[in-house]
Amino acid sequence: MLIVMHHSATDAQIDAVHRAVEAMKLQPVSIPGSQRTAIGVLGNQGYVDDSAILELPGVREVIHVSKPYKLVSRDFHPASTIVDVKGVRFGDGCPPVVIAGPCSIESEAQMLASAQLVKAHGAGMLRGGAFKPRTGPHSFQGLGRDGLKLLRQAGDAVNLPVITEVMRIDQLDDVCRYADVLQIGARNMQNFDLLKEAGRRSHPVLLKRGMSATIEEFLSAAEYLLSEGNSQVILCERGIRTFEKATRNTLDVSIVPLIRNISHLPIIVDPSHATGKRSLVAPMAKAALVVGAHGVMVEVHPDPDKALCDGAQSLDGPAFERLMAEIKGLITYLGY
Amino acid sequence: MLIVMHHSATDAQIDAVHRAVEAMKLQPVSIPGSQRTAIGVLGNQGYVDDSAILELPGVREVIHVSKPYKLVSRDFHPASTIVDVKGVRFGDGCPPVVIAGPCSIESEAQMLASAQLVKAHGAGMLRGGAFKPRTGPHSFQGLGRDGLKLLRQAGDAVNLPVITEVMRIDQLDDVCRYADVLQIGARNMQNFDLLKEAGRRSHPVLLKRGMSATIEEFLSAAEYLLSEGNSQVILCERGIRTFEKATRNTLDVSIVPLIRNISHLPIIVDPSHATGKRSLVAPMAKAALVVGAHGVMVEVHPDPDKALCDGAQSLDGPAFERLMAEIKGLITYLGY
Amino acid sequence: MLIVMHHSATDAQIDAVHRAVEAMKLQPVSIPGSQRTAIGVLGNQGYVDDSAILELPGVREVIHVSKPYKLVSRDFHPASTIVDVKGVRFGDGCPPVVIAGPCSIESEAQMLASAQLVKAHGAGMLRGGAFKPRTGPHSFQGLGRDGLKLLRQAGDAVNLPVITEVMRIDQLDDVCRYADVLQIGARNMQNFDLLKEAGRRSHPVLLKRGMSATIEEFLSAAEYLLSEGNSQVILCERGIRTFEKATRNTLDVSIVPLIRNISHLPIIVDPSHATGKRSLVAPMAKAALVVGAHGVMVEVHPDPDKALCDGAQSLDGPAFERLMAEIKGLITYLGY
Amino acid sequence: MLIVMHHSATDAQIDAVHRAVEAMKLQPVSIPGSQRTAIGVLGNQGYVDDSAILELPGVREVIHVSKPYKLVSRDFHPASTIVDVKGVRFGDGCPPVVIAGPCSIESEAQMLASAQLVKAHGAGMLRGGAFKPRTGPHSFQGLGRDGLKLLRQAGDAVNLPVITEVMRIDQLDDVCRYADVLQIGARNMQNFDLLKEAGRRSHPVLLKRGMSATIEEFLSAAEYLLSEGNSQVILCERGIRTFEKATRNTLDVSIVPLIRNISHLPIIVDPSHATGKRSLVAPMAKAALVVGAHGVMVEVHPDPDKALCDGAQSLDGPAFERLMAEIKGLITYLGY
Repeated sequence: MLIVMHHSATDAQIDAVHRAVEAMKLQPVSIPGSQRTAIGVLGNQGYVDDSAILELPGVREVIHVSKPYKLVSRDFHPASTIVDVKGVRFGDGCPPVVIAGPCSIESEAQMLASAQLVKAHGAGMLRGGAFKPRTGPHSFQGLGRDGLKLLRQAGDAVNLPVITEVMRIDQLDDVCRYADVLQIGARNMQNFDLLKEAGRRSHPVLLKRGMSATIEEFLSAAEYLLSEGNSQVILCERGIRTFEKATRNTLDVSIVPLIRNISHLPIIVDPSHATGKRSLVAPMAKAALVVGAHGVMVEVHPDPDKALCDGAQSLDGPAFERLMAEIKGLITYLGY
Repeated sequence: MLIVMHHSATDAQIDAVHRAVEAMKLQPVSIPGSQRTAIGVLGNQGYVDDSAILELPGVREVIHVSKPYKLVSRDFHPASTIVDVKGVRFGDGCPPVVIAGPCSIESEAQMLASAQLVKAHGAGMLRGGAFKPRTGPHSFQGLGRDGLKLLRQAGDAVNLPVITEVMRIDQLDDVCRYADVLQIGARNMQNFDLLKEAGRRSHPVLLKRGMSATIEEFLSAAEYLLSEGNSQVILCERGIRTFEKATRNTLDVSIVPLIRNISHLPIIVDPSHATGKRSLVAPMAKAALVVGAHGVMVEVHPDPDKALCDGAQSLDGPAFERLMAEIKGLITYLGY
Repeated sequence: MLIVMHHSATDAQIDAVHRAVEAMKLQPVSIPGSQRTAIGVLGNQGYVDDSAILELPGVREVIHVSKPYKLVSRDFHPASTIVDVKGVRFGDGCPPVVIAGPCSIESEAQMLASAQLVKAHGAGMLRGGAFKPRTGPHSFQGLGRDGLKLLRQAGDAVNLPVITEVMRIDQLDDVCRYADVLQIGARNMQNFDLLKEAGRRSHPVLLKRGMSATIEEFLSAAEYLLSEGNSQVILCERGIRTFEKATRNTLDVSIVPLIRNISHLPIIVDPSHATGKRSLVAPMAKAALVVGAHGVMVEVHPDPDKALCDGAQSLDGPAFERLMAEIKGLITYLGY
Repeated sequence: MLIVMHHSATDAQIDAVHRAVEAMKLQPVSIPGSQRTAIGVLGNQGYVDDSAILELPGVREVIHVSKPYKLVSRDFHPASTIVDVKGVRFGDGCPPVVIAGPCSIESEAQMLASAQLVKAHGAGMLRGGAFKPRTGPHSFQGLGRDGLKLLRQAGDAVNLPVITEVMRIDQLDDVCRYADVLQIGARNMQNFDLLKEAGRRSHPVLLKRGMSATIEEFLSAAEYLLSEGNSQVILCERGIRTFEKATRNTLDVSIVPLIRNISHLPIIVDPSHATGKRSLVAPMAKAALVVGAHGVMVEVHPDPDKALCDGAQSLDGPAFERLMAEIKGLITYLGY
């Protein structure tokens, strides 16, 4: 932590800051400059709470050098994490994985058709939502536990591991029973109680970036999972909220190479939710892979125009087949 | 709903859209223009899901005319809602209420001192957090149920109603037992399960705007509460995330007159969390009141530099006293 | 400047950074921490270009302590600047000034009616646009030099100083001839050539914040004016672009107390352009004044529904009269 | 245009809107719904100014169906535009072009070395800045006309067309004399006077998206160029400003397929300015190409650590060589 004093800060003010730092059991070191004094703070083992310093007289600014995460950081854990889900592997050196399936689980027939479709074209994991967060109270809210069973059945039928979103702590047992990967959605990225409970399970967790979460907050949320002992975490970029409304969100493609550099965790991309437009799913999936994403998650529905949820962004069978053909060519280019 | 066709859309494409609208049990009306055809959709009683339309051939855009909320809208419920908490009233025609107290409940002594302080200078309600959502896993997480009791005790000691945040459904019983108002925080604004459960209680609810929630999403979240039968809802603006980092968030002051126009629900402002800076709390509280906020919520701590949470934005006793003196003058100017 | 090294940075990498700093004629000071080394940079007289450092091996981050502005900073120039326009004064201790008039100058009759209207209710300065930046090429583009003359005439007729926007360097002579204050618009805030030329004139300059400019960039733009010798600068907040589209922009009210703290320059607010809605102009003008703005600039038109530009945000005569009555009460409350 | 009335709008209010529409020489058509009346507006040949309507009593909202651009729209001009610069072609069906060179022109030796470097590895055009917009007044501001000559010389020496930024109208003659393509930078995207003058020249124009410009505003800016007769326009995405500060801007990759759909103009991407980080240039360049960009523009400098401008984002020779090798493989995958 670096404490920057005002140009006009007095010696007494600088002394008071020193004493406040010492009261936190840390060591202050004055760095006199030509225009102002800065005070370095040494001895901290991690992120320091700056509340006691920030509004002391003469303090202009407090700059944090340590990040609020450590376990997820490549700085301290250089080796890449590989997340292995029944042999489907996410991480450096592994070919990218395609997770596919419908936004929501609607019926046995729909799930089975979806599973056969995505398996036929090479997806590595089946997705489907049983509990749906919907912006308005009158929309379809998902099949719940019955949906979980249908998902499991469909996955088993085609021999694919399955992933589904868990929204509440009291859903964790059910979701762990039926799914292979726990998905924590963008709206729950800072639901710290849920993160902690998920961190105590042994299931791999796919953590989606919050709609307005910085990379630092995203990694801090993952830190919650790791600090409870669960290091099988896959990060997922799904678009951020910006002023541009031509797409539902703005897919922050650059987060992929950035996070691969900062963290040892695998990162995938969800182009369906990010863009909200079927026609953008394939190009953005390819963009994600070409910058190094360890996978993509796409919405596929055998009959998107009849989907109960997010049909406008779902690929139908022929579109998914085309996408998978393009991805295969791209993976060859990428050297896998 | 208005469906805008491409300039070059064919008659067959326009027909297909008509049929799709009719399949939704709604009535399409073509509006031929000089450059393109638009198709109005009649007969809907509320917001219409556009998934089945959006990607039909020849469709350029779908424009929603109905809003995804109705119960919270002044359009259908012109009379202003007054939320009454043990005689403390929020809403049009009532003098604005100041809710004050510490970010988190730390001890009996701290809560009692806080309660006496805020009561002495004219606050109408006492706040304090028992369950704290913290960005990093190693920060102070709150006293939990013990904190709730301390809050209740302190409120009773000075005869002020109390408000505290509820973060999980399984906390609702305890919070309803000890607190007079349930606060739902910004991170939970779209925790729809929690909203629905809170909507089934009889306690008034203070709903904070999510950090990146549009006004439409904010009102839709409130709609969840009302649609379960709870119409004692106070909205709370607490800053939105923008590119500007000089303040923690950007307090969207203009939402207050805008929401007063669109909705019949009372709206208050939290300048402490919005700005993150002690020196901005008083000016922004006054800005909120002058544009018509029905109250403000400010963090006050008897000894902010020792606060376990958010000390940098908390007012100490003398600062709170000055703020309340300024507010009294302002309320006179406002005609109460 | 503080250079933060990676946890795993080698001694050789740290040495290389030292040498790079010395090559910039600055002095590096290593601050060894428990987790990583940071290197303080001493001896700089202002903002340092970090290009040569940022991508050296082992460097994690470069943190700037000096700001890219100095002349506008209260840190170095504690005394508040008062901008005096023919006796109308903007700055600390002066009653706030209302600048009012139409968006664009349309005719002699319209300008004279506008001038009489705003004068009658107590405005301190007359505004009107002769050169209009319009988003689309087919909109009304302003009367140009003829407009300037009409503005001057109208101002003289009611004895008010006048302000108008200058968009190009080759308009500077004309604008200086006819107007008392040069306005530089949001779109030109980083038109550095224009800033430099305006900085060489003796006319006061009103500089509007760019739509997506940080406070740091805003003050850096003002620094251009002051560094050319013109210190008669009034800053103007006019809303920033955010994800929220219910208002045209989001008026960042908190910038006013923040800038009053950081800079010695006066700052005013334009609620008309910020909100784009007539009904929000009065509340947001009051919000600006209550947080300490040195003035407000509002659009007033004798017949807004016939205005050639931005009629939807212009106040008509009765609305302006009501606003001015409210402002007078507020100014009394504020102690002027 | 669609005018949406309040639920409670009276017949008299609806009549008044009809009359206002008729006064604009347009035709109103009422569309009665179950909850409210909407009024369609027919007969307009383009975007309609809504000022006279927006604040009429009973009007809730005005929704624009026509876009403020027409000449750039693929809706009216389905055939793709190919921009040909001395045989280097940008547009559908042409292999993507790499524009490369230093941020600023510093010396004859530096330009010649840059030109030879970028030519050797397959760039199709040479870039270099003679006039530099710099955030702070004390930074290097470019060599001006001397720089233009050095750019021309270097381009001729290696037989590459050259592009450079024009910032002021009075620079247009010089830039047209020495450069093959006029670049209009992000800060000038809404400098409408400059756009109009550039639109009157016969040189192709590369127009960069403003830092906070929507796609609609970006295309409207291009409309200025086309409406003056210059249809040789290349659009360029260079990142938008968002809350995320880990990269300088957020590169909006999805704009590429979106614009290819909406407009007939070619679009390229500048990953160097978008990210501000050398390590992200190559991945984001590949992302741009894989989604269909007609080219990329990258900063290359023979000795980036000594660059006078933006060295941190410039590639050196070996990095550029690696990028070009990767791009060649990608272009093969893309089928060129």
